[in-house]
Amino acid sequence: MAQSVFDFGMIGLGVMGRNLLLNMADHGFSVIGFDKDTTKTGALESAATAGTTVKGVAELATMVQLLERPRKLMMLVPAGKPVDDVIESLIPLLEQGDVVIDGGNSHYTDTLRRVKYLREKGIHFMGIGVSGGEKGARTGPSIMPGGDKEAYEKVRPMLEAVSAKVNGTPCVAYLGKEGAGHYVKMVHNGIEYSIMQLISETYALLKKEGLSNEQLHETFKKWNEGDLQSFLIEITADIFLQKDDKTSAHLVDVISDKAGSKGTGKWTSQDAMELPVAVPVIDTAVAMRTVSGYKDERVEAAKIYNSSESAPALSVEQIHDALSFGILLSYAQGLAMLTQASRELEMEIPLPEVVKVWRGGCIIRSTLLEVFTRAYEANPTLPNILLSEEIAAIVKQVVGNTRTVVASAAQSGIAAAGIMSALSYFDAYRTERMPTNLVQAQRDYFGAHTYQRIDQPGTFHTVWGE
Amino acid sequence: MAQSVFDFGMIGLGVMGRNLLLNMADHGFSVIGFDKDTTKTGALESAATAGTTVKGVAELATMVQLLERPRKLMMLVPAGKPVDDVIESLIPLLEQGDVVIDGGNSHYTDTLRRVKYLREKGIHFMGIGVSGGEKGARTGPSIMPGGDKEAYEKVRPMLEAVSAKVNGTPCVAYLGKEGAGHYVKMVHNGIEYSIMQLISETYALLKKEGLSNEQLHETFKKWNEGDLQSFLIEITADIFLQKDDKTSAHLVDVISDKAGSKGTGKWTSQDAMELPVAVPVIDTAVAMRTVSGYKDERVEAAKIYNSSESAPALSVEQIHDALSFGILLSYAQGLAMLTQASRELEMEIPLPEVVKVWRGGCIIRSTLLEVFTRAYEANPTLPNILLSEEIAAIVKQVVGNTRTVVASAAQSGIAAAGIMSALSYFDAYRTERMPTNLVQAQRDYFGAHTYQRIDQPGTFHTVWGE
Repeated sequence: MAQSVFDFGMIGLGVMGRNLLLNMADHGFSVIGFDKDTTKTGALESAATAGTTVKGVAELATMVQLLERPRKLMMLVPAGKPVDDVIESLIPLLEQGDVVIDGGNSHYTDTLRRVKYLREKGIHFMGIGVSGGEKGARTGPSIMPGGDKEAYEKVRPMLEAVSAKVNGTPCVAYLGKEGAGHYVKMVHNGIEYSIMQLISETYALLKKEGLSNEQLHETFKKWNEGDLQSFLIEITADIFLQKDDKTSAHLVDVISDKAGSKGTGKWTSQDAMELPVAVPVIDTAVAMRTVSGYKDERVEAAKIYNSSESAPALSVEQIHDALSFGILLSYAQGLAMLTQASRELEMEIPLPEVVKVWRGGCIIRSTLLEVFTRAYEANPTLPNILLSEEIAAIVKQVVGNTRTVVASAAQSGIAAAGIMSALSYFDAYRTERMPTNLVQAQRDYFGAHTYQRIDQPGTFHTVWGE
Repeated sequence: MAQSVFDFGMIGLGVMGRNLLLNMADHGFSVIGFDKDTTKTGALESAATAGTTVKGVAELATMVQLLERPRKLMMLVPAGKPVDDVIESLIPLLEQGDVVIDGGNSHYTDTLRRVKYLREKGIHFMGIGVSGGEKGARTGPSIMPGGDKEAYEKVRPMLEAVSAKVNGTPCVAYLGKEGAGHYVKMVHNGIEYSIMQLISETYALLKKEGLSNEQLHETFKKWNEGDLQSFLIEITADIFLQKDDKTSAHLVDVISDKAGSKGTGKWTSQDAMELPVAVPVIDTAVAMRTVSGYKDERVEAAKIYNSSESAPALSVEQIHDALSFGILLSYAQGLAMLTQASRELEMEIPLPEVVKVWRGGCIIRSTLLEVFTRAYEANPTLPNILLSEEIAAIVKQVVGNTRTVVASAAQSGIAAAGIMSALSYFDAYRTERMPTNLVQAQRDYFGAHTYQRIDQPGTFHTVWGE
């Protein structure tokens, strides 16, 4: 038997697994990675920083033997069956008290099932969301762990070391029980879909006002220096500068408009409906990616509905405000979802910690997260950030221009689906009495589904129209 | 042993089951109903029309014994476990070739599972959607059967007899394999949610223009005589006349705005995302019912965001057109979902038959279904009705006013979520080049998710920003 020497093990040495492991080694941990593919184990070792302890092996049992007890290991493999397969291979190799982490994008219900399954065997299973892409994994991602608090304490030193830091604070914290880590990551991705959709609408609106790619770059660069400062705005600025190798055109102009997806946005919307909680901007982002795939139909529809509408010009400032408003509402809906999921699914997700973790390293990091951190510190049980005084002040500043942008987009025929959805949600949310009393009347009329009254408790049914 | 005499049996004598059975008896079939609750079996018998053959029994085995072979029986029990329980009780009592129908709102995946389970035992299981509420069940519902064609032929005479008729044509037809009947009914309900949401927005807009309940009644009554003629518009007109017994106010004004739901709208959105197909107006309707439940938060938000916006007045005609547009788009999205589900899930749903079945008896019946029937007769594989010439002509007539209504709603702070969602979907759908090329660039930038190009096939990745 080889001597136990390594602090942490990784199963799956794709770029994310490799980078996270190298990151950990750079912080003084001895690490070992397993992959059946020896080109990947080789790539891991050759990419290691001089003086760090990094080993790659092609046998799972070897890696497990070489880990310090209790073992701490993570898998970064595709969600679904591969995760279950790895678990089954690990079970005979592990001992009570070992900690197994799934760092991929698993659905939280799968994580919940696996936590229970491994708990029976005395093994700690944690679902951990990791965001930041390849580069983030190497230099400091945002890490969203859920599971046993006891297990978290065992891996906490490694996770804190590798995570992004904001003013010295690691972008990792214990985010709740059982499936909470993957749940938080899923909602993170839903918000990400939503913000990306909003930015694309802003792009369409600015383009309609005649901005060139250079001007778009300048606009987003400037926005990134102000209250919209965020990773997604920053990379958007970069994107407009990128030239195509092949045609010397701007690359963005030769990229197909069919948008792909990996499914986490869809999960967010589906699970939100299940709770239920309303996240219509995320729903809209999911729907628009789907519509982007209807290329042939869109080409045909463009011929049929080819009228050109017009509307008064919008200023860059107005469009900026609509984007700010939309982004705020995306976070509001996602965070409200977490608040409700925490309660309904008994995950005990600490919202103040979630927004702190999201401040750095992840795809949706932005200066707004500082505002949200203050809001949740002031009131950790805030049902919706729209009810925070500081956030209300921001909303009030930008909602007027948002109204103008929606009106103009409607008149000019630009599909501002996400911005419209954000505004209509907001206007419904701030309505003391919605017109859904009529919906209840209709449901009772045709289906005897009963209704409640505003003036007395109870459930009522009327024989209508008689 | 008693003699086999009855043509059709019903399990579950709630109001829907009773009414459907009485309807069948009125058409000359001898029918028998089972319910453990003898007040319900009594109620069935005492409600029978003189001269019809109607029997109620409190023993399932008795009912099964008294049915003509092959037996034809339907259950109308709550979706979920109750359906499985009934199936288990039936299995020992049935013989090969018998036909068991689930007439409730089961999820199609459950139906699919049950079809396979009972097929192994030689029993035909059909999932059938029934729409029309209590009254429809008694006088003529819309019936959406799916399953074995062979089994359908056995129950066809009964179903055709009891269904609604449009110009002598029964509102029932074979709608596809296995789970197709419940799938079609689910999408029917999704469209229903959507139209109800749109009507409630119209109500809010008309109310803002100062219309009283009497004027709202007159408006919807007049609309129901024109191109908006439909069951939901008709009952809406009635609703505004209804007086409250208790306060002598208009009943609609004392009904709570918290809207309930039974979940089929939610299923439609969730399953649409799964396919995926975009049904954002239905998604929005689902989200708005959820927001209607946030009563306490809305009251608080109303205090914080209490500014009163204003916009130029809208005419009743403009609001009418926005509703027409929204309703058209709701059907377009729902029907596109059925088209795609039919293909992806191999259900062979005949769209021309679906729209014919929906012309009468069901909650979403409307004169528009005649237009859709013509559209699908002209082109049974139409991917989206928006691509039909006749429908395009209608859309073009109403879209201009829809733009005005959306602009005004945005400016005046009325949450026209469904109308906005319909318009933004339309504007995306008729866009040859959407701005989602930027989304693809972003995905490739941070996640190396690759992109396609417009000028050559293949999949590409760029190292951005370097």
